[in-house]
Amino acid sequence: MGKKYGKMIMNSVGRLVPEEVNGEKQIAFQGVGKYIPEGRKYSPYISSCVNFPADGNKLVGSLKEALIKSGLKDGMTISTHHHFRDGDLIANQIFDIAHELGIRNLRWFPSASFPCHSYLIKYLQDGTINRIEGSMNGALGKFASEGKMHGIGVLRSHGGRYQAIQDGEVQIDIAVIAAPSADAFGNANGVNGSAACGLLGFALGDSQYANKVIVVTDNLVPFPCIPWQIQGNYVDFTVKVDKVGEPEKIVSGTTTVTKSPDRLLIAELTSKFCEQTGIIYNGFSYQAGAGGTSLSIGIYFDEILKKNNWKARFIRAGSNQFPVKMLEEGRVDYILDGQTFDYEGIRSMRENPNHVDTSPFTSYNFHGKGNFASIIDVVILGATEVDLDFNANVVTHSDGYLMHGIGGWQNCLAGKTVILPIPLFRDRIPIIRERVTTLCGPGELIDVIVTERGIAVNPLRRDLIDKLKDSNLPIKTLAELKDEAERICGKPQAIEFEDEIIAIVKWVDGTVIDTIRKVKS
Amino acid sequence: MGKKYGKMIMNSVGRLVPEEVNGEKQIAFQGVGKYIPEGRKYSPYISSCVNFPADGNKLVGSLKEALIKSGLKDGMTISTHHHFRDGDLIANQIFDIAHELGIRNLRWFPSASFPCHSYLIKYLQDGTINRIEGSMNGALGKFASEGKMHGIGVLRSHGGRYQAIQDGEVQIDIAVIAAPSADAFGNANGVNGSAACGLLGFALGDSQYANKVIVVTDNLVPFPCIPWQIQGNYVDFTVKVDKVGEPEKIVSGTTTVTKSPDRLLIAELTSKFCEQTGIIYNGFSYQAGAGGTSLSIGIYFDEILKKNNWKARFIRAGSNQFPVKMLEEGRVDYILDGQTFDYEGIRSMRENPNHVDTSPFTSYNFHGKGNFASIIDVVILGATEVDLDFNANVVTHSDGYLMHGIGGWQNCLAGKTVILPIPLFRDRIPIIRERVTTLCGPGELIDVIVTERGIAVNPLRRDLIDKLKDSNLPIKTLAELKDEAERICGKPQAIEFEDEIIAIVKWVDGTVIDTIRKVKS
Repeated sequence: MGKKYGKMIMNSVGRLVPEEVNGEKQIAFQGVGKYIPEGRKYSPYISSCVNFPADGNKLVGSLKEALIKSGLKDGMTISTHHHFRDGDLIANQIFDIAHELGIRNLRWFPSASFPCHSYLIKYLQDGTINRIEGSMNGALGKFASEGKMHGIGVLRSHGGRYQAIQDGEVQIDIAVIAAPSADAFGNANGVNGSAACGLLGFALGDSQYANKVIVVTDNLVPFPCIPWQIQGNYVDFTVKVDKVGEPEKIVSGTTTVTKSPDRLLIAELTSKFCEQTGIIYNGFSYQAGAGGTSLSIGIYFDEILKKNNWKARFIRAGSNQFPVKMLEEGRVDYILDGQTFDYEGIRSMRENPNHVDTSPFTSYNFHGKGNFASIIDVVILGATEVDLDFNANVVTHSDGYLMHGIGGWQNCLAGKTVILPIPLFRDRIPIIRERVTTLCGPGELIDVIVTERGIAVNPLRRDLIDKLKDSNLPIKTLAELKDEAERICGKPQAIEFEDEIIAIVKWVDGTVIDTIRKVKS
Repeated sequence: MGKKYGKMIMNSVGRLVPEEVNGEKQIAFQGVGKYIPEGRKYSPYISSCVNFPADGNKLVGSLKEALIKSGLKDGMTISTHHHFRDGDLIANQIFDIAHELGIRNLRWFPSASFPCHSYLIKYLQDGTINRIEGSMNGALGKFASEGKMHGIGVLRSHGGRYQAIQDGEVQIDIAVIAAPSADAFGNANGVNGSAACGLLGFALGDSQYANKVIVVTDNLVPFPCIPWQIQGNYVDFTVKVDKVGEPEKIVSGTTTVTKSPDRLLIAELTSKFCEQTGIIYNGFSYQAGAGGTSLSIGIYFDEILKKNNWKARFIRAGSNQFPVKMLEEGRVDYILDGQTFDYEGIRSMRENPNHVDTSPFTSYNFHGKGNFASIIDVVILGATEVDLDFNANVVTHSDGYLMHGIGGWQNCLAGKTVILPIPLFRDRIPIIRERVTTLCGPGELIDVIVTERGIAVNPLRRDLIDKLKDSNLPIKTLAELKDEAERICGKPQAIEFEDEIIAIVKWVDGTVIDTIRKVKS
């Protein structure tokens, strides 16, 4: 297909990255904290109330009308949020409309994509969409990895996405914000309505910086829509539709703890590690995801708090029934929530002022005056691969296919102690590699790898190693763990790639940390 | 003193305004809704987390240290908010420090000033402060009116202040945000702490756009400070002091309804007018201040709601015990609050999620994608003078002295029906004039003048006049009311001004609507 990119240069972690992608100049990764931006934030056009209805009623007849009034044309950047996850009914409609209007060459800039969006492959094929800048999972990832996308994908973390918007790296022409509740002025939230998803924080930057902002809702309430997680003062048009999302696919009704004995062991080892090293204390803070192992770790953490009669100051979440229970039973002061994963999370955010909605701006933006990520005591994250220098991969699998987005993963590496509890192998493929397929996170930021057969501590964390001197925990080196896995599964085969670049991976500061190539067919 | 201003030109309401003020080009008022801005919003520098402490602790030893670290130097613009009203203990300290450091020629850009700030006259005299851009009341107003300020004052409405910041008309070098509660990261609110003032909305624009932002608090809480009305991600430094404000001067303990028979009559006539014209209905909205007459009108409105078993959708406030009572008793869905005037207002904002803090961005910014002001059904405002074309003055008295700020007054003129309930004379000086001393609001936006001796309806509001055909209310023309007042008090003498301009008055779109001249001594 002949994707366009510039000369390849070696960045500071030894990865070849292009100087230019999709016609846009890139800056190669220079090392953690080394690139300091100059210049000013992106500045949207000044609006005037003269051009908006005095009665606050910005309703137009349809999404199509709103897109036309927003000036939809070839080559534009269209953004959406992913709070509806696999239950999103709006993103696909946007591109149906674009296709119907004969628009071509759009950049889709979602905060993440989900299986439901594989519907868009036909528009990636026919040139309605040039490329996706955002996570490409499952079928979309496979499509991209096979070199079938016209443009080159750009993967950014949640914080990196906000940074790119704020800094003007990505200029959004039209942001479409699907909302479970909204008023005709454009104030919107995610806590009420049949498509309730909790919050709309991933769309915050879009609302602030996009040239045109469209709010689409199936639950139109009289002004004012409270809370206004999205402020109508940023919104150009509002649209009422029958249904914005499939509730049962937006949230899993309940979040379930892992039953796998290996994963339970990993969770137990992780919490014991945190207990023995004193990472958990009265007033500590942590971030853990909603995956089965993470949930288990959260439950262990909670037991440690109970046992000591301690209280956490805050949990950064991905909320679900477990942190909510802790909040309601008084074992944590606040949940600072970036996305809700189940109905309990949504209910709690709606009812409890101490369950606070956050955004990539507050939590993750590396080009702010600080952010929350680095304040957190302990962060639990996943990985698809880790190498002997603690570098980690979250976007490709060991078969080379792009399978996941970065999410908040890179941003969370700023936490005080970063732990990756991961199985030593998946489908008999060892996770600890000589060299990660894609380098998403530099090893200097990753402190601990916990597997079912042992715990490896980054030698940079002398303090943790000292605290474990008399520990009964199975402390090993990454090399030992790697050997152990390879004794069981054999040495993994090298993946064959073609030269062609199908995506780049950005670091939290907007520089390019790695390149993803087409998988050899 | 030789203030510098450019050539005078006539604007669309017949007022001579300077083309340039304090070395900055000005645009003359062109008529309501006529000036449409081009260009982009002001863009602050991009920050990086590299330059902020990873643990989120931005505390420095003192306000002086914070100001020095913020690069305080000659000619800078320093902003403060007025949520502490006459109990503010921080603004004066800033200029004490500036004076001590030998800094000169500062522009003070408060959201309003109060009697306590007359302390700063010495710094206006010695050149530490060049000028105030913001309200100048009492002693400061007199000082300015006597031509004693070095620079020329610029008066802006609350919304105009946000617009000026957003559009880059005023570039704030250092914003100092005094906060009743804050954490070391800079998250701050006004609902907790001994200096609780309710909210901090007037400082929102300052936090978003100032180059350096300092949060000063006497109530430092562990991260996170919830709610974060001001977001720490915008904050450079935090400072802990012993006391940020005098609680008893921040709020009046209780807000009291007028006892004056004339004012009670005005309030009664106003509410009857609203009832008879159908302005009050089930689901209506209104904005009324916390002055004695306004409070009375609010109480009358409440009685009309009760009588009809109606509910207001929202009250825009200036909150106090009366709207709070309505909220708690279920006669209004929401209070959208710009500033709290008593302890009940603060308590309600702290406790009740339906008592929502707003900002000049949401409520008043004319260069947004709409704002709340124009959505409101009926707005009750004051005035120092009105002329026969319904033009009104709120900043100068009939003696020519600058005595008040504009506040949200100009912004509220966007409301669907704007009523000025005012006494026909004050201190035996008639309020209805041939020509207002200073034109702050064009008559086309002012619908009704209610006095104790009659009600005048703007002829543009044919709809209202029609509804009053069979009314028993004392409907008169403004000319009749003016004659009546002059029969009682005599015709007021013309004020003598010198040529020298001491301040300009901006319209909500940043254009210059009038000029204030030095009072002849």
